[in-house]
Amino acid sequence: MKNKLTIVKIGGNIIDQTDELNTFLTDFAAIKTAKILIHGGGKSASLFSKKLGIQSNMIDGRRITSKEDLEIVIMIYAGLINKKITAYLQSKRCNAIGLSGVDANCIQSIKRPINTIDFGYVGDVKKVNSTMISNFLQAGLSPVFCAITHDKNGQLLNTNADTVAAEIAIAMSTLFDTQLIYCFEKKGVLTDVNDNDSVVPILDQKKYENMKNNNTIHTGMLPKMTNCFYALENGVQKVVVGNTKVIQDESSVCTQVILQ
Amino acid sequence: MKNKLTIVKIGGNIIDQTDELNTFLTDFAAIKTAKILIHGGGKSASLFSKKLGIQSNMIDGRRITSKEDLEIVIMIYAGLINKKITAYLQSKRCNAIGLSGVDANCIQSIKRPINTIDFGYVGDVKKVNSTMISNFLQAGLSPVFCAITHDKNGQLLNTNADTVAAEIAIAMSTLFDTQLIYCFEKKGVLTDVNDNDSVVPILDQKKYENMKNNNTIHTGMLPKMTNCFYALENGVQKVVVGNTKVIQDESSVCTQVILQ
Repeated sequence: MKNKLTIVKIGGNIIDQTDELNTFLTDFAAIKTAKILIHGGGKSASLFSKKLGIQSNMIDGRRITSKEDLEIVIMIYAGLINKKITAYLQSKRCNAIGLSGVDANCIQSIKRPINTIDFGYVGDVKKVNSTMISNFLQAGLSPVFCAITHDKNGQLLNTNADTVAAEIAIAMSTLFDTQLIYCFEKKGVLTDVNDNDSVVPILDQKKYENMKNNNTIHTGMLPKMTNCFYALENGVQKVVVGNTKVIQDESSVCTQVILQ
Repeated sequence: MKNKLTIVKIGGNIIDQTDELNTFLTDFAAIKTAKILIHGGGKSASLFSKKLGIQSNMIDGRRITSKEDLEIVIMIYAGLINKKITAYLQSKRCNAIGLSGVDANCIQSIKRPINTIDFGYVGDVKKVNSTMISNFLQAGLSPVFCAITHDKNGQLLNTNADTVAAEIAIAMSTLFDTQLIYCFEKKGVLTDVNDNDSVVPILDQKKYENMKNNNTIHTGMLPKMTNCFYALENGVQKVVVGNTKVIQDESSVCTQVILQ
């Protein structure tokens, strides 16, 4: 029987609220299984760019990562946020190690090819170094990843944090009984975005397709849900979407995503 | 017999010159023994603070690290510089892992006590986790440290990079036959600061004291020399001061520091 591994992804809204973040990190530190944290960036990178007078570039409503943007996200995600989270976890007796994908070649990516849009310095995950990550876990460490990856040719790349979480979970699922938890500000997948209690407890693909067709799922949730099903289809044992309370109390309200 | 370990510290002047830095990193990647790199910060943190309108604070000619300064150095040292160096080394087939002292609790420090001056968020090294660093080396990794440490109570601290290098070398010298190399822009310790060929090949404590008394050593070198002797007095097997060519060619001109 494989050992259990809990992989938690926290989004930007939690990152931006220090008190909520610290409560979450205290709960994360108390998780008894092997564990990995993946964090998004929050609003600080945009705020910082604004302070420096760097314009954000959007094409067709999608963010483009310029060279200047990339330097800012490396500074904020791999620097400030990653090290602050790691320092807090260390103070809670969790032996955290803050990493980006370049470190120990943990996450290799390729610069997204230009089809209709040139997204700039954005990477799509190519390979997760599960052996190295497993070494860290066996040494009693809890890796804390930001979503900066590299192409092994010296180029750092900005990567979607939800996708990084799914790819790490998939790679680790061959070695561990892996649970992937996406934490965000809602209690789970909602049938009514304005009612935080309209949580779908179990969401399978059929129900998800129905919700998409009826427009009863918020469009902002679609990429996250794609990552959930992608993870399950590729071997991840359990996928959950919910707020930070899920970490502390397994019986709290959330959405478990299943294939069928 | 212990395995060999090469510990190299590179200063700010190399960091600021991309071509020279990349040449150095290519040579560093080719070092055949186990190896660790410690890097300073260069001018980018000051330039960045200036852009953001953050005033640098000096008391009696000594830099004070304010809360704002600390955030900038975490971003620049632990973020941008550390990850760029790691990405470059990865592209040269060196399995580098970029770390700050908080990661895996590698370097614990204490906030410098206030005597006459409050230096702000500055840490003095308390303990280096040689077991963990040794684990990384045994896994084939080459740690790349910036000089950000932590107090284990959640506080990150700015630390002198020369001292971090000496403390790491001392901790590792019980496990490895450790060589510590301080790389900077000069060929070594000079008897005439304007003549880059006036290198002292062997510098022992007696000669150093004479040079200090005669004012034939540049005052900017004194803290570095203190670290060199401190390392040797505490078990480091070999200490060298020179420019980046020392890494590529052991026979190149440099200063070897010895106790007597």
